[in-house]
Amino acid sequence: MDRSQLVKTIFEKRSCLCVGLDTDIQKIPKHLSTLEDPVFEFNKAIIDATLPFSVAYKINTAFYEASGSAGWKSLEKTAAYLPDSVFKIADAKRGDIGNTTDMYAKAFFEHLNFDSVTIAPYMGSDSITPFLKYKDKWAIILALTSNASSTDFQLKKLSDSDNSLYQEVLTLTSAMGNISNLMYVVGATKASELKSIRKLVPDHFLLIPGVGAQGGTVKDVFEGGANKDCGLLINSSRGIIYASKGEDFAVKAAQEAKLLQKEMESFVTV
Amino acid sequence: MDRSQLVKTIFEKRSCLCVGLDTDIQKIPKHLSTLEDPVFEFNKAIIDATLPFSVAYKINTAFYEASGSAGWKSLEKTAAYLPDSVFKIADAKRGDIGNTTDMYAKAFFEHLNFDSVTIAPYMGSDSITPFLKYKDKWAIILALTSNASSTDFQLKKLSDSDNSLYQEVLTLTSAMGNISNLMYVVGATKASELKSIRKLVPDHFLLIPGVGAQGGTVKDVFEGGANKDCGLLINSSRGIIYASKGEDFAVKAAQEAKLLQKEMESFVTV
Repeated sequence: MDRSQLVKTIFEKRSCLCVGLDTDIQKIPKHLSTLEDPVFEFNKAIIDATLPFSVAYKINTAFYEASGSAGWKSLEKTAAYLPDSVFKIADAKRGDIGNTTDMYAKAFFEHLNFDSVTIAPYMGSDSITPFLKYKDKWAIILALTSNASSTDFQLKKLSDSDNSLYQEVLTLTSAMGNISNLMYVVGATKASELKSIRKLVPDHFLLIPGVGAQGGTVKDVFEGGANKDCGLLINSSRGIIYASKGEDFAVKAAQEAKLLQKEMESFVTV
Repeated sequence: MDRSQLVKTIFEKRSCLCVGLDTDIQKIPKHLSTLEDPVFEFNKAIIDATLPFSVAYKINTAFYEASGSAGWKSLEKTAAYLPDSVFKIADAKRGDIGNTTDMYAKAFFEHLNFDSVTIAPYMGSDSITPFLKYKDKWAIILALTSNASSTDFQLKKLSDSDNSLYQEVLTLTSAMGNISNLMYVVGATKASELKSIRKLVPDHFLLIPGVGAQGGTVKDVFEGGANKDCGLLINSSRGIIYASKGEDFAVKAAQEAKLLQKEMESFVTV
């Protein structure tokens, strides 16, 4: 999906909601367990129910890998089920030397047809540029993450610039691509940093996890991070997909997604 | 595998060779292509042929993911085929928030029974500590990698210490575990840095990629990085597994592995 399609979808749906499919086979409703592929059936129902309110879906690969090749089968089926009208994110946090990164790009862009992959920047440009060779595909680079231990390294100040490490990541990597093939992960729990992030990357999209279960709010994220194209994809995973553990799980997921979309609506206007 | 078993194996075989199974279906000998699972058959033959000369095997997950769930099936079969007498490394470079890291640990330690996983430290302790809950399992953290763009961030100096980022990674993360559950990745192409690395982590094992195709030498690595327990796992991937593209691929792989083992022999003595 290219940038103009993404922006159009956001303004049409008045939503920048990304639904996170962190689907844990231990946590899905019991009545699904007799089906051939409970994880896929769960995801299918969640996608169908939340589609009116969301513009993106993020598949957290770890939850599928935990079941090995069977989990990857569920991942493949889920990725294939996602309609082309939504922005598809493989939340895989990959990052390696060039010839290995080529393989990851092949896995996520060719084999699975995702629009984007999340990337850990520790190994530098070799981890990023192979993803940028694909037309209308995106690299989503970890900048300032939502977890407590993001402070261990990301906030460390560098001596040869005024930048902290995550600011250096923004500065250096934004020059490797452009606003149509690079996004950044910034945790909603770091909303106070959004204004300074926008000074470095005013026009890029930001993928914002951490709303809901992790404690961030939609209002704070918009006030600190929105730009003229919205410029945000706000993710909620557990708060939506596990809204109910009963047979009504999809209905409840839709209600939670709708609540978030309603919160977003007033901020997403032409 | 625990540390004492690993050290014992190294001194028995007089080798710290790790064979990297970066198996690319496009690059394996053509005569295997008619078999049901060419990648697994290739790996099986490579493992059988190189086993006398190596103490560890490293599976680069990207090369398997590029073929989706079918690739993961080959990965599972290869991991299961590796004997318990060798140290098994999932070169996956994972790293995420705590609840996701739990899933990665489940994938690689429970489902696939690897001894260790490589980890990108950008997100801090949340990416590391869940792996350390498993007895006799290891987290192998990226410190100073072998690729050219490792300089983008890893060598950046921090302002509140004399450390560069990779040295800060060594300092902070070594306190999260111990020498029996943590190792570090240091590229053989960075042999000049090994002495200063040993000042920070004198007793840890180092996983050293970059010998062979990437240009590092066994001698330089031993001279800069060995400790009393050897303390090194030196990886070669392409130089061994693609030594021949013909029907003699396994024989040639064994010859290359033996050459490296011979180079190591004089350094690995009781």
